[in-house]
Amino acid sequence: MSKGEFGLIQRFFSQQQAQPSSIIQGIGDDCAVLHTQQLSDLVISTDTSIAGKHFPHDADPVLIGKRCLEVAVSDLAAMGATPLYFTLNISLPPNPANWLVAFSKGLFASANRFPMTLIGGDTTKIDSLSQCQMSVTVFGSLQGRTGLYRRGANPNDFIYVSGTLGDGALGLAAYQKPENFTATDRDYLLDAYLSPKAQIQLGQALVGKATSCIDISDGLLSDLGHILNASSVGAEIHTDKVPLSTALKRNMNQDDAIHLALTGGDDYQLCFTSPLSKAALGIDNIYLIGNITQSKGLSFTPNNYVPPKTTGFDHFL
Amino acid sequence: MSKGEFGLIQRFFSQQQAQPSSIIQGIGDDCAVLHTQQLSDLVISTDTSIAGKHFPHDADPVLIGKRCLEVAVSDLAAMGATPLYFTLNISLPPNPANWLVAFSKGLFASANRFPMTLIGGDTTKIDSLSQCQMSVTVFGSLQGRTGLYRRGANPNDFIYVSGTLGDGALGLAAYQKPENFTATDRDYLLDAYLSPKAQIQLGQALVGKATSCIDISDGLLSDLGHILNASSVGAEIHTDKVPLSTALKRNMNQDDAIHLALTGGDDYQLCFTSPLSKAALGIDNIYLIGNITQSKGLSFTPNNYVPPKTTGFDHFL
Repeated sequence: MSKGEFGLIQRFFSQQQAQPSSIIQGIGDDCAVLHTQQLSDLVISTDTSIAGKHFPHDADPVLIGKRCLEVAVSDLAAMGATPLYFTLNISLPPNPANWLVAFSKGLFASANRFPMTLIGGDTTKIDSLSQCQMSVTVFGSLQGRTGLYRRGANPNDFIYVSGTLGDGALGLAAYQKPENFTATDRDYLLDAYLSPKAQIQLGQALVGKATSCIDISDGLLSDLGHILNASSVGAEIHTDKVPLSTALKRNMNQDDAIHLALTGGDDYQLCFTSPLSKAALGIDNIYLIGNITQSKGLSFTPNNYVPPKTTGFDHFL
Repeated sequence: MSKGEFGLIQRFFSQQQAQPSSIIQGIGDDCAVLHTQQLSDLVISTDTSIAGKHFPHDADPVLIGKRCLEVAVSDLAAMGATPLYFTLNISLPPNPANWLVAFSKGLFASANRFPMTLIGGDTTKIDSLSQCQMSVTVFGSLQGRTGLYRRGANPNDFIYVSGTLGDGALGLAAYQKPENFTATDRDYLLDAYLSPKAQIQLGQALVGKATSCIDISDGLLSDLGHILNASSVGAEIHTDKVPLSTALKRNMNQDDAIHLALTGGDDYQLCFTSPLSKAALGIDNIYLIGNITQSKGLSFTPNNYVPPKTTGFDHFL
């Protein structure tokens, strides 16, 4: 990590006093050093959040701090891992102190709920908050569990999701045009968009029960598509079973609501497959939305939904 | 990591076929999974490079690819670690294919020289290359060695650096105003600025010999200052012993040259302390530039250099 930001690190990012014994060196030197023999494995993922793309630059910095960690940890959840450590790369405008007080408050509120420890990072200078980017790299452990990969879905497996879909995408609309929503719906949708929660407990509960798992960051069809590709299978989606929130249903007609639920990003629910029924899984608050098919590709029942040619953000090039 | 960039990952970042046996899952799932018991420890550092701040956005993408990895690995060198893996977060403008062909060529040329394996990352969209940021997180191991920390310098230790200083900073000037330099000097200085090399072999050779070590990214006085603070000591610098390149001496008067060598960034040489003489160290191409003092603070001999109040980039706030 670069060292010029030493005062900044000391002031805002050294507030976690209790350190796990596996940390030989935390923040404050050229590198962090971990004693990994007691871990047996390390699960790593990294996520970048960009102002104006992934969050509004003028959002409450407490929420930005929470969100940038939660969306990174969401990948650990999708693997069934236990969160342990993280690093933070953040670019900041001049005089960031007030903003950082709030940002770091949110960041560590989220970190402490897992709990996980900040072990390093890098701060760089930018001209204005609208250019702010943060990359969070998260480290966890399976602690002897088998990980939840994308490649294990089998024909006839059921497909489940962990909560209502489309709320994150509609939440962005509620942030941009709050006057279009009632206060109740706005509060609910903004919370879904700005305050996603990594489903760590669910991910761990699925180990040994789910055959594949992914978190829904780019939209259900896009992310489920990665499971289907990795597993060389297809899927039948029951569009009438896709869970929709009351707020979503109140603000969109049924076709648009289903479309948003299938393709909108930023939900950070888990999507997983399992041969087990909902009763056999014994997990609350999950929704059966379809099943895996031997024939590749996606089909929809009732047969009145036509998916867009491009789904989610799958077509960078 | 987010998953929308799947095609991009497949096309440009999956070119390393041989994977160490410690990698249970590399790129292509929600997380990477490492089998760490055979490692005993993991050394981690992360570094962000921003277009227009750390590299010119219109520089050769082959060099940008090499540079973003080398400057991150430089922290592993300063710890005496062996590089193993890395992740890459990169933000890219529309239609990045041609740029990425060259960038990934440079990135993997650097990765393969260590060698180290890409295990994950995240790509995000920006509007233009001038907004490009990349965060590289590097993973290494001490393999049973004791790490080189900042906190071990003792009074009367010698202070060494691993190469000429100031060339990186003057290289930036040569990039901005090439007409001010001869072709020979320009080539040398641009190479110093755009193509730093992480001093991995030196770092490992210093284990057991150096009492502290840091890489010089923000300028000697700033980075040495972290050793002095962490070790609760001071230093006497022999300004006439600070190594200067012929190119630097040809383009600056002596006072300015020494000032740039002491405060310029981007050199990525190592600075280390040791009670051993150069002969006892038995390492070539290192330069004795001063000694650690019991009294804190910096002093300079010959006594004609006045350090600036702010050194390097140490004053973010």
